[in-house]
Amino acid sequence: MKYAKLHANPKLLTAVDSAALQGFYGSRHPAIISEVISTLSEEEIWALIQRADKHLRAEIFSHLDEDQQISIVGTLNSRDVASLMTDMPPDKRTDLFKELPEALQESVLPALAQAEREDIRSLSAHEEGTAGAVMTSAYATLSPELTTAQAIERLREVAPDSEMIYYAYVLGEQRQLLGFVSLKKLILAQRSARVDEIMHTGVIFARVEDDQEEVARKIQKYDLLALPVINAQNALVGIVTHDDAMDIMTQEHTEDMEKFMGIGGAHEDAAYIKTGVWGHFRNRYPWVVALAMLGLVSGFIVQRFEGLLLQFAILAMFMPMLADTGGNTGSQSATLVVRALALKEITSKDVLRILGKELQVALLLAVLLGAIAFGRVFFFGGGSSMPEGFSLLRIASAISLALGLQVVTSTLIGALLPLGAAKMKLDPAVVASPALTTIVDITGLMIYFTIAKLMIGGL
Amino acid sequence: MKYAKLHANPKLLTAVDSAALQGFYGSRHPAIISEVISTLSEEEIWALIQRADKHLRAEIFSHLDEDQQISIVGTLNSRDVASLMTDMPPDKRTDLFKELPEALQESVLPALAQAEREDIRSLSAHEEGTAGAVMTSAYATLSPELTTAQAIERLREVAPDSEMIYYAYVLGEQRQLLGFVSLKKLILAQRSARVDEIMHTGVIFARVEDDQEEVARKIQKYDLLALPVINAQNALVGIVTHDDAMDIMTQEHTEDMEKFMGIGGAHEDAAYIKTGVWGHFRNRYPWVVALAMLGLVSGFIVQRFEGLLLQFAILAMFMPMLADTGGNTGSQSATLVVRALALKEITSKDVLRILGKELQVALLLAVLLGAIAFGRVFFFGGGSSMPEGFSLLRIASAISLALGLQVVTSTLIGALLPLGAAKMKLDPAVVASPALTTIVDITGLMIYFTIAKLMIGGL
Repeated sequence: MKYAKLHANPKLLTAVDSAALQGFYGSRHPAIISEVISTLSEEEIWALIQRADKHLRAEIFSHLDEDQQISIVGTLNSRDVASLMTDMPPDKRTDLFKELPEALQESVLPALAQAEREDIRSLSAHEEGTAGAVMTSAYATLSPELTTAQAIERLREVAPDSEMIYYAYVLGEQRQLLGFVSLKKLILAQRSARVDEIMHTGVIFARVEDDQEEVARKIQKYDLLALPVINAQNALVGIVTHDDAMDIMTQEHTEDMEKFMGIGGAHEDAAYIKTGVWGHFRNRYPWVVALAMLGLVSGFIVQRFEGLLLQFAILAMFMPMLADTGGNTGSQSATLVVRALALKEITSKDVLRILGKELQVALLLAVLLGAIAFGRVFFFGGGSSMPEGFSLLRIASAISLALGLQVVTSTLIGALLPLGAAKMKLDPAVVASPALTTIVDITGLMIYFTIAKLMIGGL
Repeated sequence: MKYAKLHANPKLLTAVDSAALQGFYGSRHPAIISEVISTLSEEEIWALIQRADKHLRAEIFSHLDEDQQISIVGTLNSRDVASLMTDMPPDKRTDLFKELPEALQESVLPALAQAEREDIRSLSAHEEGTAGAVMTSAYATLSPELTTAQAIERLREVAPDSEMIYYAYVLGEQRQLLGFVSLKKLILAQRSARVDEIMHTGVIFARVEDDQEEVARKIQKYDLLALPVINAQNALVGIVTHDDAMDIMTQEHTEDMEKFMGIGGAHEDAAYIKTGVWGHFRNRYPWVVALAMLGLVSGFIVQRFEGLLLQFAILAMFMPMLADTGGNTGSQSATLVVRALALKEITSKDVLRILGKELQVALLLAVLLGAIAFGRVFFFGGGSSMPEGFSLLRIASAISLALGLQVVTSTLIGALLPLGAAKMKLDPAVVASPALTTIVDITGLMIYFTIAKLMIGGL
C-alpha cells in the first residue's frame, strides 16, 4: 500500500494489517502521524494508537490538539486513561489533567501510580504563565561523586522516561543545584573522571515563579537545550525545554501584538478558530468603546472651532490627513520602541537618547510632509470657499506648520508612552496603537485649530 | 577576588592572575563572559580572550556583537584573524567574513586552511533569508553500516568541532540523506546493532532555498534540535540548529510587526539603536507620505459635502469618532487574521468561515456602538447649530446607523485584505494597519455623508 494514499485518506489506515501499520508508524514523526489521523473519529484514533507501542502511543496522543485529547479520553475507561497518561510527558500530562472534567479527574487520579499523582499535583500547583507552569519533571539528575562511565550508564537507564538526557543536573543532598554536565562533555571525558570534576558550576536557572517569557529569553540568549527551575528552597523541581521555549515565544509575541492593537485575552493554540463570536466580542469591545468615547473629545474640539470651520472649509478638508498622519507617525515610533523594549535592546533609562533620535527623525518627516501639504494647499487649494481678503499663502503656511508640529508631537508621544509604561513596570504594549491614534487625534486637532486661529484669525 | 566586583568593573579582569582568570572563565557561560567584557576596549578584549583556550576564545568572541567583532578583527594581523576564525562555528564565521572590509577578506582568505576557505565560500553563496544562509556545516554524519559502538566512537571524535552531536545524519555515497539517529537512540541500542537498523528513515528536512521562517516553523512543529538542509542534488549541505531557529523567529516576529505598522527594513540585532536617523527616516517615510496623500481623498469627500457640514455642524463633531472607530475595528480584525494566517491556524481558503465570524462580531459591535452614539446625539446633542425643523431623532438615527455600517464594513475589510494578500501569495502583513486605517476613513466618510444626505437631506 502506498503511504501517500494513507495521507490523503487516513480511513484506510484503520483497515491495514499490522506490518503495514508498523511501517507507517516507524518512518514518520509522531507529529505527522498525529496530523494524519486527527481527521478520524475519537474511536478510530484510539483504535489506531492502541496498536503503537506505549511510548509512541503517548507521543502521538500528546501531539493531538488538546480538545481532541479531551474527547478521546472521554470515550475511555479510567484505567485506560491512567495507563495512557502514565506514558505522556509530565508537562503535557498535567496540562491535559487540568482540562479534564472534574468527575473524570476524580476517577482517573486513583488509577494512577503514586509517583504520577504527586507529579500532577506539584506541576499543577503553579500559576499560569510562570516557569513552574511550563516546566516538566522528566529531567535527568546525577550525583557529584559518580564517574563519567557511571553517569553515562545512569543516563541510559533514565533515557526512556526523560525528555532531555543531553543535559544532566548534578544535585546535592537537598536536591540543590551543584552543576550541570552535557552528554557531549560526558562522552568526551575520561571514563574515570568524576562528574564534579567536569561539571559546569555557574548554572543558569530560573525560579518557579519567574515569568515564562523570561525563561524563554534565557534559553534563547544562552543557546540552551533546557533551563533548570528551582523552588524557594533552591531545590531543582523541573526543567523547561527548548521546544517549549519556542512555543512560549510564539504565544507571547501573538499576545503582545494583539494587546498592542487593543485586543484582550490570552492566546492559545488555534485561538482564532476556537474562540466563539461572544469571546471575540468580549476581547474587542472594551477598547473600541473606550476609544469611541475618547474620540468624542475630538468632536468637542471640532465643535468649539465650528465658527472657524464654517469660514474656512479648507480646514475641514485637511483634518482627516492631519489626524491620519499623526496616528501613523505616532504608531510607528511606538511600535519601534515597544519592540526594542521587548527585545531588551533599550531600557526605560535610555529615554533621552531615544527622544533625541525620535525628534530628529520626526523633524525630517515634519519638513517633508509640511512641504507636501504646503504645495497641495498653495497650488491646488483655490477652489474652497473662504472669506475675501485671506491669502492662500497664509492658510498654506498654517496648515503645513500644524501638520509638521503634529508629526513631531505624535512621534514623541508614541515613543514616550511605552517608555513610561516600562518605567512603571507595566508591559509597554499596553500603550495600544489604537489608543495612541485617538490621543494624537486630540492633540493634533488642538494644534491645528490653535495655529489656524492664531495665523488666520477668523472673524 | 570577588567575581561580583569583576562584573561591575571588568577592567579589573585585565589585571588578575592566570588562575583567577581561568576560575572566572570556567564557571561562566561564554555569553555572560562576552557581556561582561564587551564594555572594554578592542585591545583589552583581545588580550583577555587570548588567555582562554582556543575553543572558549572563539565562543566568547562569537557572542560579541557583530560590529564589535569587526573592530577587534581590524586590530589584528591576518594570521591571528585566520586562527580565531578557524575555531568559530562555521555559520558565525561566515557571517563575520561577509561583513569584513574587502581588503581584510582578501588578506585573511589565504591564511585560512583549504577546508575553511571552501566552507566560507559555500555557506556564503546563499541568498539572505534562506535556509542556506542560516545553516551551519558543523554537523555529524555516519555511514549506515557502522555499529552503534562505532557510531558513538565517531561522534566522540567529531564532538569538539560539531555544534550538534545529539543528532547524527546517516548519508549514502552521494551524501544523500538516508536517515538520522539521535545520540539517545545510539546509547540505548545494542552496541552491535547497525546504524541503518536503528535509524529513523522519514527524515524531516529543508532545501537550501527554503525561506528561513519555514525552517524555524519546522523545528518548532517537530520539536527538533536541528533540521538538515539539502541541495538540488539531494545531498546534505548543512543543518539549522534550534538556537538559530529561535533567533529567526524573533527576527521574523519583529519584521512582521513593523511591516504591519508600516515600517520598512529588515530587522537585525539591536537595530533600533544602531540604525541612524536617516535609516529610520528611510524606513518610515514611504508609508507616511503615501498615506498622507491618500488621506487627502478623505479631504475631498469632506469638501464635496461642505454644504451639508455647514448646515449641520453636529456632523463634523462626530466625524473623528467615526473615523477612529472604523480604524480601530478594522485593525483589530486585520491583526487577528494576519496573526492566525502566520500561525497557520487558518488559510485563505477559510474566507467564508472567517467572514461569517467577523460579520457576527461586527454586528454585535455595531449595535453596541450605534446605541451609544444614538444616546449621545439624542440626549446631549441639542447645543449644536442646525436649521429649523430638523428633528434630533432623525440626526441621531442617521449618525448611529452610519457608525454601525462603518463598524461592519471596516471589520470585513480588515479581515478581507490580509486574506486577499495571502491568496495572492503575498505576506498578509503587507496590509499594514495604517493603510487600513486610511482606507476605512475614506469608506467611512462616504458612508457617513451618504446616509446623512439621504436621511437628513439638507437644503
